[in-house]
Amino acid sequence: MNCPAFLSAAARRPLQIAARVRPPRQRQLHISAAAMSQKLQPAARVASQRQDVWSIVNEAAAASPKQPIINMGQGFFGYNPPDFILRAAKSALDRVECNQYSPTRGRPRLKQAIADAYAPHWGRRLDPDTEITITTGANEGMLSAFMAFIEPGDEVIIFEPFFDQYISNIEMAGGKIVYVPMHPPPAGGEKTLSAGEWTIDFEFLEKAVTPRTKMLVLNTPHNPVGKVYSKQELERIADICLKNQVIILSDEVYDRLFYVPFTRIATLSPEVEKITLTVGSAGKNFYATGWRVGWLMGPAELIQYVAAAHTRICYSSVSPLQEACAIGFEQADAEGFWDQCITDMKNKMDRFNQVWDELGIPYSEPEGGYFVMVNLAKVQLPDGYPFPPHVADRPRDFKLAWFLIQELGVAAIPPSEFYTDANAHIVEDYLRFAVCKPDDVLETAKERLRGLKKYIRAD
Amino acid sequence: MNCPAFLSAAARRPLQIAARVRPPRQRQLHISAAAMSQKLQPAARVASQRQDVWSIVNEAAAASPKQPIINMGQGFFGYNPPDFILRAAKSALDRVECNQYSPTRGRPRLKQAIADAYAPHWGRRLDPDTEITITTGANEGMLSAFMAFIEPGDEVIIFEPFFDQYISNIEMAGGKIVYVPMHPPPAGGEKTLSAGEWTIDFEFLEKAVTPRTKMLVLNTPHNPVGKVYSKQELERIADICLKNQVIILSDEVYDRLFYVPFTRIATLSPEVEKITLTVGSAGKNFYATGWRVGWLMGPAELIQYVAAAHTRICYSSVSPLQEACAIGFEQADAEGFWDQCITDMKNKMDRFNQVWDELGIPYSEPEGGYFVMVNLAKVQLPDGYPFPPHVADRPRDFKLAWFLIQELGVAAIPPSEFYTDANAHIVEDYLRFAVCKPDDVLETAKERLRGLKKYIRAD
Repeated sequence: MNCPAFLSAAARRPLQIAARVRPPRQRQLHISAAAMSQKLQPAARVASQRQDVWSIVNEAAAASPKQPIINMGQGFFGYNPPDFILRAAKSALDRVECNQYSPTRGRPRLKQAIADAYAPHWGRRLDPDTEITITTGANEGMLSAFMAFIEPGDEVIIFEPFFDQYISNIEMAGGKIVYVPMHPPPAGGEKTLSAGEWTIDFEFLEKAVTPRTKMLVLNTPHNPVGKVYSKQELERIADICLKNQVIILSDEVYDRLFYVPFTRIATLSPEVEKITLTVGSAGKNFYATGWRVGWLMGPAELIQYVAAAHTRICYSSVSPLQEACAIGFEQADAEGFWDQCITDMKNKMDRFNQVWDELGIPYSEPEGGYFVMVNLAKVQLPDGYPFPPHVADRPRDFKLAWFLIQELGVAAIPPSEFYTDANAHIVEDYLRFAVCKPDDVLETAKERLRGLKKYIRAD
Repeated sequence: MNCPAFLSAAARRPLQIAARVRPPRQRQLHISAAAMSQKLQPAARVASQRQDVWSIVNEAAAASPKQPIINMGQGFFGYNPPDFILRAAKSALDRVECNQYSPTRGRPRLKQAIADAYAPHWGRRLDPDTEITITTGANEGMLSAFMAFIEPGDEVIIFEPFFDQYISNIEMAGGKIVYVPMHPPPAGGEKTLSAGEWTIDFEFLEKAVTPRTKMLVLNTPHNPVGKVYSKQELERIADICLKNQVIILSDEVYDRLFYVPFTRIATLSPEVEKITLTVGSAGKNFYATGWRVGWLMGPAELIQYVAAAHTRICYSSVSPLQEACAIGFEQADAEGFWDQCITDMKNKMDRFNQVWDELGIPYSEPEGGYFVMVNLAKVQLPDGYPFPPHVADRPRDFKLAWFLIQELGVAAIPPSEFYTDANAHIVEDYLRFAVCKPDDVLETAKERLRGLKKYIRAD
């Protein structure tokens, strides 16, 4: 602001508006105003402006009278990565080469650390040079996979509920999405059952495959359901993909948080491994969703193209935090970190869900991850409650979410956002809560949620 | 490696090969081997496997007898960001919210700091909420801009020599690239002249515009030429873009390194500002190419779509380093950092180029940035020198680069990589050197380059 020519935004605004309506200089402009605006239009892939669930929930939270809101909506951690990882990041910042470009496929030390860390789970050590590639978070990693294999018109099967970024990522590559819904257990509104009881109709899945099916996206442990696919389920999915030579993109970002036995689909057989890309996330593994370090693991024949797409999208990924993650993987076992992760998160899950047991509200008992799907069919929303139009238009779970934010000051996510409109009714009684928050926050949330008692329908 | 089932990669390899040739299980596989491999093929956008200049130079460097090589090829810094930025990054790592997701458009503190830092150069303060969006480096920022506005078949004008990532980024959005070459001064092989004497043929540029032209990419200060476009040149480019309502994407990542007056095209007039997106880079500004923090600035009507594309590509950008960059911008003036940047880099430039003056080899005296284009027309490559086939096939600048690496142990980049094949001859006598290296490295490079003397053709 040390420039004498500086004008405040307010002072400048009339000039800008004037420019918009002022007749164009004759010498320069030969096209009509309509054509002008036409030429500055966005591409169809970004033109849609339907408000997404995250901004609806965030705006509702900001406007709620119950401040501060307890935010159990988005799945970010309410606490820091462990000290040994933070120390590693700080020491990386002191090293010249850790602040400059990394190789596009990732820092060799991180790829080696991942190869070592996954070896016990994989049954062999992956080749760090050819079977692992580092991406800018799991999200950009999945986009890289779609960009690597999807030609316009190719079909990709995804299960509902889905992680919403899958949709735009597949569409950006020109892919056509084929949806296969997961179904909650029929008794899910009456009693608490395992998240493992959410099921896929395998006949429906088989019929969804066509000659244009190029990829299938799997997510286990599953967000938001909390299901860990059983080995038998994975074998059925793998058989269908093998039969049709469909590439499996297995989103396993919650792979260190499982409370029942967890099978990685790539490890079912060498044949399945040849068609599988597995996605991992340092943000989820190390409590650092803002670090943007992810990776894909798979056969060299497939990984090479994922790496090529990643290079074209982001060039390379963040260097000092890649180095920190490498050190994190190297030291995690000695620190007892992975076991502690499971113990801590399971304790948080049990601590939080106790309030639902107390209220007699059923939920899907998670087998993995840090989300819990709670069935609020028994909650009666007051007649004539004043929902704003953009909430009133949506399924009942959006109204439940709005109501909880306004009346109790607790934010959760309506999962019908993760279904197609036709299938949204399947989860209209559910809300998703993220429990990756400090224990005192969970206790405050519980205390607030006890206020639901008076809205619960007597059976 | 603590799993009894662990097999080494070598032990497992026969199994994998066997799987590839073993007859498929009858129950599962109904398609031929040819169809199988067909179905796992990559998309055309990543299928090309021509070796890029970076890997050719890196492999040549690794194979050279003159170890260690002085690498003046890629434009990464040979020294660290300043201490006040590193301290900021370390303090951000201690804060929970700086390790979790940032808003998709970027951290509010960084957007405000950028708005303040650019105000003196812009003539007004940009609105941090609507006129600035943070990206995962300038590279992903430019991809976001292309994804935001390019529909398949839309045309994008770029000048040669270009930054090679532009090409794949535009093609990923389905755009058609229209090339307009820059020409070095005709006497560039005989005497050192200003990089400002590289020129565009404006008639050629006007003819390159068609009704499908959607965007034009500008780069100033220019990589690799070192040219800072004059105000008059920018006005001519802007006039053409205004007349045809072409969006200007101005890559200004070297905007803190100029040795002649530097004009930002967006500041020419409010009309030009309405059609211009300006790209910035923390990696270039703060000596941290591995941090992957960039930004786009422009009118809210355009920025909203860039932000939407960025959200779909990377979701959000690296949080603790965004915070560090915010603090960097806040403190840079008080630290005298921007002035120091110019002084330090100009000193490095002059220090290095002194060897060319000494040898009588002309170069384009840079007006900005940290690259220098040296004209080696006078260097005679020995007859019958054994170039490998992938170098022998390429223009003379690739041979010059190979020769310098093998004989002198100095790596530079052949700029014909940044021209189309048809125009590659324009720069076949040039090599690009990056001077953003410690002074002792520059001195060693000079000492080695004195070895060129015996290959210089007498005039």
